[in-house]
Amino acid sequence: MPKYLRVLSEYEQVNDDRISSSELGRRLGYTASQVRQDLNSFGGFGQQGYGYCVSDLKAEIDTILGKEKHFSAIVIGVGNIGRALIENSFFEENGFNIVAAFDVSPDYVGKEIDGVKIYDIATLNYIFAVKRVDVAALCVPYSAAKDVSERLVDMGIKAIWNFTNAEVCVHQPAVIVENVHFSDSLLTLSYRLGERQHSDMPQKQTSA
Amino acid sequence: MPKYLRVLSEYEQVNDDRISSSELGRRLGYTASQVRQDLNSFGGFGQQGYGYCVSDLKAEIDTILGKEKHFSAIVIGVGNIGRALIENSFFEENGFNIVAAFDVSPDYVGKEIDGVKIYDIATLNYIFAVKRVDVAALCVPYSAAKDVSERLVDMGIKAIWNFTNAEVCVHQPAVIVENVHFSDSLLTLSYRLGERQHSDMPQKQTSA
Repeated sequence: MPKYLRVLSEYEQVNDDRISSSELGRRLGYTASQVRQDLNSFGGFGQQGYGYCVSDLKAEIDTILGKEKHFSAIVIGVGNIGRALIENSFFEENGFNIVAAFDVSPDYVGKEIDGVKIYDIATLNYIFAVKRVDVAALCVPYSAAKDVSERLVDMGIKAIWNFTNAEVCVHQPAVIVENVHFSDSLLTLSYRLGERQHSDMPQKQTSA
Repeated sequence: MPKYLRVLSEYEQVNDDRISSSELGRRLGYTASQVRQDLNSFGGFGQQGYGYCVSDLKAEIDTILGKEKHFSAIVIGVGNIGRALIENSFFEENGFNIVAAFDVSPDYVGKEIDGVKIYDIATLNYIFAVKRVDVAALCVPYSAAKDVSERLVDMGIKAIWNFTNAEVCVHQPAVIVENVHFSDSLLTLSYRLGERQHSDMPQKQTSA
């Protein structure tokens, strides 16, 4: 569904408000019938011979994905990754509000990034006392990941968007964890490259 | 497999060179029998009653994942994300060498990040003329993603590690694309949060 949303937004910028399942499929790398099947399973928005109304389809997917729920988020650690999350407006674009950022470094504490104030991580509990916090983006160094995630759970965090290379909250089924493990992604790439290289090599002939 | 590797590296730092399938499972959030099944499918490294030798298991997974192949990489775009990839040593730790970085901004061109030189993206073709380049980490703005990825394909890139929110090389089956779509990940989180919230709400009673 997020992929559909992305492709539809791309399409909308340069086209009219109508898209066929085959055009949508072409952009997604799927067949037209896969697209129809996917979208039918969400209640069938299309019309035979007309295609899909892009704005209706987007609104429907937004609702399914909870984009209108306006969850609130904090960012923990404003190194390169934390900073990228704030500056690139990922949260706002996807219906989240960033209510605060935290770091340990005196170089950052007290400053702002794009209007988001950075607080000392020692004061993390204060924000939970005064605001609803649904999600924490965890962008701290590996060595701090376990400790900070445990503190977040104690304070009642509902979900962690985990950018550290650590496994967090493995035994906390009540907390939703969505991982962005860069290393796993790179190793998957490495594996696929190795496989490709292997299949490109001339095969040894076996004598019968 | 990347997940196993991560958990084994964590374990190794504070424990001995031996791990049971149940301990490994506990750390992964899997059952012991799932672990045995996973590892058996790669040739069975374990020994009944002893468990697994951590260093052997890691070496075996490294080989499977191609970590010893020393693929070479370039980073395109040294904003927050590109910079994070270079500074956090993701490439080196996973057996890749970064041979160069590229950007359009005169503020960056000619400088270095952690020993990696930043070149003008207009000179992208030069690097392909003098060095083997296997992977490009694509960290450019959304608007530049299609154009840059097409240039990379023309120059013979084998794989793209795509951090942009665009779909690239959809119709280039020869190019391996590994996507890190932050927005997709956040929308998945949003969807799971919405679902959880829904199931936590008191159910309306229906009168029979």
